Amino acid sequence: TVGPASSPQANREGLYFCDGQRKVDYVLVFHQRRHGSLRSPASTSVSHDRLSITNEPADHEMRLIRQEFEANLMEAGLEIERDFEVKAHGPSFTRLHAPWPVLCREAEFLKIKVPTKTVSCLLGSTTFLMSTVWRKLNQPFQPKVSSQDHGSSKLLSHCFSRDKLHLTMHIHASISLFLLCQQLLHEEWARYSAFYKYQPIDLVRKYFGEKIGLYFAWLGVYTQLLIPASIVGIIVFGYGVATVDTDIPSLEMCDERLNFTMCPLCDGACDFWRLNTACGTARASHLFDNPATVFFSIFMSLWAVLFLEHWKRRQISLSFSWDLTGIEEDEVNNESQNAEMYTSAKHTHTHTPSFPTAAIEKLTWKDRLPGYFINVSSILFMFGLTFSAVFGVIIYRITVSALMAMSPDPETKSNVRVTVTATAVIINLVVILILDEIYGAVALWLTELEIPKTETTFEERLILKAFLLKFMNAYAPIFYVAFFKGRFAGRPGNYVYVFNDYRMEECAPGGCLIELCIQLSIIMLGKQLIQNNIFEIGIPKLKKLVRAIKDKGTAQKESEDERPPQQWNRDYDLAPFEGLTPEYMEMIIQFGFVSLFVASFPLAPVFALLNNVIEIRLDAKKFVTELRRPVAIRAKDIGIWYNILSGMGKFSVIINAFVISFTSDFIPRLVYQYIYSQTGTMHGFIDHTLSYFNVSNFKSGTVPQTSSQGEITFCRYKDYREPPWSAEAYQFSKQYWCVLAARLAFVILFQNLVMFLSLVVAWVIPDVPKTIVEQLKREKKLLVEVFLQEEKDKFQLIHSLFSKDPPRHQSSHSLWTSHRHLRTLPLFRRKAHSGLPDMQ
Amino acid sequence: TVGPASSPQANREGLYFCDGQRKVDYVLVFHQRRHGSLRSPASTSVSHDRLSITNEPADHEMRLIRQEFEANLMEAGLEIERDFEVKAHGPSFTRLHAPWPVLCREAEFLKIKVPTKTVSCLLGSTTFLMSTVWRKLNQPFQPKVSSQDHGSSKLLSHCFSRDKLHLTMHIHASISLFLLCQQLLHEEWARYSAFYKYQPIDLVRKYFGEKIGLYFAWLGVYTQLLIPASIVGIIVFGYGVATVDTDIPSLEMCDERLNFTMCPLCDGACDFWRLNTACGTARASHLFDNPATVFFSIFMSLWAVLFLEHWKRRQISLSFSWDLTGIEEDEVNNESQNAEMYTSAKHTHTHTPSFPTAAIEKLTWKDRLPGYFINVSSILFMFGLTFSAVFGVIIYRITVSALMAMSPDPETKSNVRVTVTATAVIINLVVILILDEIYGAVALWLTELEIPKTETTFEERLILKAFLLKFMNAYAPIFYVAFFKGRFAGRPGNYVYVFNDYRMEECAPGGCLIELCIQLSIIMLGKQLIQNNIFEIGIPKLKKLVRAIKDKGTAQKESEDERPPQQWNRDYDLAPFEGLTPEYMEMIIQFGFVSLFVASFPLAPVFALLNNVIEIRLDAKKFVTELRRPVAIRAKDIGIWYNILSGMGKFSVIINAFVISFTSDFIPRLVYQYIYSQTGTMHGFIDHTLSYFNVSNFKSGTVPQTSSQGEITFCRYKDYREPPWSAEAYQFSKQYWCVLAARLAFVILFQNLVMFLSLVVAWVIPDVPKTIVEQLKREKKLLVEVFLQEEKDKFQLIHSLFSKDPPRHQSSHSLWTSHRHLRTLPLFRRKAHSGLPDMQ
Repeated sequence: TVGPASSPQANREGLYFCDGQRKVDYVLVFHQRRHGSLRSPASTSVSHDRLSITNEPADHEMRLIRQEFEANLMEAGLEIERDFEVKAHGPSFTRLHAPWPVLCREAEFLKIKVPTKTVSCLLGSTTFLMSTVWRKLNQPFQPKVSSQDHGSSKLLSHCFSRDKLHLTMHIHASISLFLLCQQLLHEEWARYSAFYKYQPIDLVRKYFGEKIGLYFAWLGVYTQLLIPASIVGIIVFGYGVATVDTDIPSLEMCDERLNFTMCPLCDGACDFWRLNTACGTARASHLFDNPATVFFSIFMSLWAVLFLEHWKRRQISLSFSWDLTGIEEDEVNNESQNAEMYTSAKHTHTHTPSFPTAAIEKLTWKDRLPGYFINVSSILFMFGLTFSAVFGVIIYRITVSALMAMSPDPETKSNVRVTVTATAVIINLVVILILDEIYGAVALWLTELEIPKTETTFEERLILKAFLLKFMNAYAPIFYVAFFKGRFAGRPGNYVYVFNDYRMEECAPGGCLIELCIQLSIIMLGKQLIQNNIFEIGIPKLKKLVRAIKDKGTAQKESEDERPPQQWNRDYDLAPFEGLTPEYMEMIIQFGFVSLFVASFPLAPVFALLNNVIEIRLDAKKFVTELRRPVAIRAKDIGIWYNILSGMGKFSVIINAFVISFTSDFIPRLVYQYIYSQTGTMHGFIDHTLSYFNVSNFKSGTVPQTSSQGEITFCRYKDYREPPWSAEAYQFSKQYWCVLAARLAFVILFQNLVMFLSLVVAWVIPDVPKTIVEQLKREKKLLVEVFLQEEKDKFQLIHSLFSKDPPRHQSSHSLWTSHRHLRTLPLFRRKAHSGLPDMQ
Repeated sequence: TVGPASSPQANREGLYFCDGQRKVDYVLVFHQRRHGSLRSPASTSVSHDRLSITNEPADHEMRLIRQEFEANLMEAGLEIERDFEVKAHGPSFTRLHAPWPVLCREAEFLKIKVPTKTVSCLLGSTTFLMSTVWRKLNQPFQPKVSSQDHGSSKLLSHCFSRDKLHLTMHIHASISLFLLCQQLLHEEWARYSAFYKYQPIDLVRKYFGEKIGLYFAWLGVYTQLLIPASIVGIIVFGYGVATVDTDIPSLEMCDERLNFTMCPLCDGACDFWRLNTACGTARASHLFDNPATVFFSIFMSLWAVLFLEHWKRRQISLSFSWDLTGIEEDEVNNESQNAEMYTSAKHTHTHTPSFPTAAIEKLTWKDRLPGYFINVSSILFMFGLTFSAVFGVIIYRITVSALMAMSPDPETKSNVRVTVTATAVIINLVVILILDEIYGAVALWLTELEIPKTETTFEERLILKAFLLKFMNAYAPIFYVAFFKGRFAGRPGNYVYVFNDYRMEECAPGGCLIELCIQLSIIMLGKQLIQNNIFEIGIPKLKKLVRAIKDKGTAQKESEDERPPQQWNRDYDLAPFEGLTPEYMEMIIQFGFVSLFVASFPLAPVFALLNNVIEIRLDAKKFVTELRRPVAIRAKDIGIWYNILSGMGKFSVIINAFVISFTSDFIPRLVYQYIYSQTGTMHGFIDHTLSYFNVSNFKSGTVPQTSSQGEITFCRYKDYREPPWSAEAYQFSKQYWCVLAARLAFVILFQNLVMFLSLVVAWVIPDVPKTIVEQLKREKKLLVEVFLQEEKDKFQLIHSLFSKDPPRHQSSHSLWTSHRHLRTLPLFRRKAHSGLPDMQ
């Protein structure tokens, strides 16, 4: 396992080679196992660190690999210092120093941009006064880091080139700034008390590299944009609270004078019941099921589009200020392509040790077919597992509520619904949490089976699989409640039974939306709280403890160390960096809660916001203090996550359309008000939604055994069906079809309207901010001027050095050419003609 | 006006300067007006040629501009030859020669890639046998041009650099190939007899530049993909023809035993009528309205996606084989950015002569507001105009059919529908053709008002406006027939009247789909035939004739030319190149016919295919022989047209969903078969769709004055309404709502299914063909090897020349560095260190 050298409490001794001159740039760790423990799987989890050599091969083989690897490093110009003692087992460290020429070579090769001495003023996007006021207002939210990074000027930068070295800032100096970085990050970023501040993203990027920088920037943008969503969500919820006492349908449901006798909720054991006993859920329902919710879900669909557009802009701004512009895609990916062989080797070694690495390139589809087959069937099996889990909980709910209803204890009876719902949701939550972990491991295993060629492909496939499984897992029970629960229950006299005995469950009298809301809020909150606290804080702490105890045991058995633990020993004790996938995944699933079912739970953004404010600092703390410093990876964007986000945004439109039109009572109310109501108001709506059932039509044995409601001829149930006295008794009525048509029309209208608005929003907001475009143009121009001037000076110098002749035609032409190319960058790479003899 | 020098029948004399050595690379034409005719607008159309100087400014001013312009050209290193005679008016020619150093400089500056001497084998995508068979089969369709362009090898190419000149092919040689090009294009491309062949796209690109090459490549891909669409369309139509005799609803409609007495089609003058008289339209309707059509519209929606994906791949393949890969967006646009000032100057001069060019950059939104305001209001006005035209035709149809129905002549009466429909569609067509031309001009005028900054912006905005207007124009009447006609006609006893007297029109008894089909086919065919024949062939011929006559007049008045007309004189006589916008626009509107309403007219792809096969050769002929050779413009893609196409593809999904569910009878039939039919067959469907009307409920004066049908109590009409004896007489029946719900559900299902499938298709097909990816990798590697070898050789040469010392550490390191960089391209731009004294 490998990590760049740097950590808190760094001292000079640990940071340099023995000569005290050469800095330790990188530390390699070879973990040698004890003899005899050869079969114990020392490398349990597949780490995402590059270059890691797994311990699978036999001992002597491993030593050979190590020797070859180190020889290659030295050949590449790196300088190596090993530990003096060569222990038989346990970690042994090899420290690397990259000399200046090697750094230069690699910087040139990777086209790393470095700042020049020239300063270019940043264009302000607003007028002077505005921007000043804005800066003043923003002051308390800015982290206290040196203002260099968000001042009004920016150092011009260009691709590193040894030829142009004299024009660039001192790079070594900025490398030594790294130590300062960590301290600053500790104080201004990885603290809960800094929760209200912007993140010092530039600093994060400097210390952790672009990929991790982008993650935190993304998380920041997401959290920031959750603020307006939360505010609107609270207002919408507030509207529900404010209007609950004037809402006619809930008033009618609670009105004791309207004597609706409802059909029993279970066969035999249950009695007829009065509708006004469900007054509570009706009022609660109104909090989430009101016209403001419709507005809110349109708002949130557009919000999702806005978020993605905003992020695109931010990404481009970042890649501008981090000098990643102009780097082609494949150059960014070079690093991962270089790691290609290692990756393949790693995955191959781990699972098919006899498989030659070089042959991976030549795998045909026939070789890959079994892998794909296992893949598809496993994923289908996992889907089946998820569905079974959901179905199991349904069975639990149905049977337990039936059993409880039959119980003679009246106390038990009255609490049936609450008890069953609460326990069922908790079971759901636990199942989700367990399956989540399992699915993560399964996705990893399946992706390894595919033997992808590059690290990038590996990551993408892993993410897709993990996302698919975890998404299904988290949302299956919610989808069930939203779209299926209560729709297959049948009608009085013709109920649907499972296992011949148990009636399919129905929604609460207040409508399915309130159940959806409960389900959603408990799963979302539970998942966040438990995963944040237990998985992200608890388990790493536990792991650390276990490792510490283990190491202690090892250390005690051996003789004592000759010297106190070095910096690299301490670093090695930290947990390894496991990649950003789990962090992103958690946020993406949360994004689903915020966007997919927002129509039923307007407070979702608020809870997401609260969670994320903590999450940022939690992650920051973890990265700064608890993990080995990860290898910096260059990245221009967040990759496949963007596609997943955008896909979810699109999916959320249709889901919200269905939730509003089918789960909520919005459409039936509209239809009643504008088509059936005599007065044009909502009065009589409840009566309209309840159909009549003739008690004499109950099948034998399903009539309530005891009734406290007196003599009942007709009971009511919630459905649009013909009354018993109609020619087509109990058939769907005209109202049913009319409401259905209205619901479907709403879905079409909503979906297409929102899709159109999203397109407009995405089209109106340019991907590249205007200031950046202009700034880029100006920078190019400035840079060319700088190099032009330099080339001119050089030419004159050579001219005065080499000859006293009048300038030849060719050289004056060359100068003239340069002048003409003022507008382009590529020029400065061309060499001055006059210095070399004309060999072409 | 400006054009590169080259045309058929080129002779050596016309192609060189007087010295017979320097080639004429470019000809500038200054058209000086006669004195006195200062106010006559000599430059009528705004040409899209770059650098063109308009004649607006006064005479002496113009001469100054010309002098300055020519001075700038000479300063840029170009050599100039003018005509000896300086005529007072008429065109005068300035010929330009670009010397070798200037060409080199510009090639370097534009990063033009040139072939090296190294050959790289192209990877075959199929196995050897397959590809051989395929090539054999394809042989007759290949144009007979030199196989260099589609052989199995490709010359490696890299950005032009003077340093690497010795490695590249002779470029001058390939320039002289241009003359051959034209001849080949003439023979193998611009002939109708070559209609079945692939186009020699590489040759087209060589001669006309990338932008025009891309247009023809796009047209080729589109036409090619129309072949499968046509085949499926014909099969679908064939299915309709084959099943027309077994289709139960049409049999029932034609069955004389089923005695349906229909309510009269107009008030008073019309009689009751028997349904079986509409047998013909019913049978015709079935040809287009059958289950196969549903399949076909799903197929065509996916076809549109496939087409776009296929084009993306083709575009990337082309940019690979044309060596445009690796060129950044802004570098491609450099040319247009350079032309920026000229464009602005042109548009400014033309319309606001007092407006300083430099100030365009500083226009604030306040300056631009009036322009935008005029824009929006004009576009709204044009929309209004289109709608009025459509409405006018409706009024025409209503009144004329009412008047004809009242005519005493039975001959007239029986032909009412045919006569009115035919004339109305022809009026529609004429209106569309006229408005099309007007809208083109209006869009141009409006875009000029906006004073866009660059040529690219100008083109994009023009295209968007023109597309919006022309699309509305072409499709408004079709939309009317598809979705509105017959839906606001009311019901017997309660008809909707316009102008108090005329009943709103209804659809033909066979359904609206057949009318939509007629409308669509006539507009599509008429538009294609007339625009192709008259506008594309006739009018240019006419223009040429007019110009010839005019010039003759001019020539006769003056003294005779001293010498026979030169090549440039003949070129100048050709029509100027007006840009690709009209060509693309025509095809895009056609794409709309093929994709938007394909559910109602499965033969649309066939007609489009027939048209395009001719269109390609027609355009080719025009470009090769009738237009001045346009300036070659580099382009990586087809720009905004792709967005428009993709937008139309998306729009077509929802339109087709609505056409199938609302315009066709598909859904009512399904609903009848699976819900209402007693036998589960379609028997009784016609009876089911007809409602009853009690004749005594007719308003006074609307009962037929004379009836040949005997005593009638009830007449039937096509609608789902309650019968007169129901409690809710003439209200929409339960069936109505049921069918409506089914229709809407189908729309949702269709739209989301097709959108999902499209996403899958787009996701499955990679944008960059796999062979290209691998080829690119290999090329990079090869190229680096070549340059590496060269650098090594050079180093050794220098080494042996300059010193006999053993190599210093630095230089050996430099060589080593090179070796390490085998994998990257940028290396070869770095100079060898050892040649220059170390000045840094």
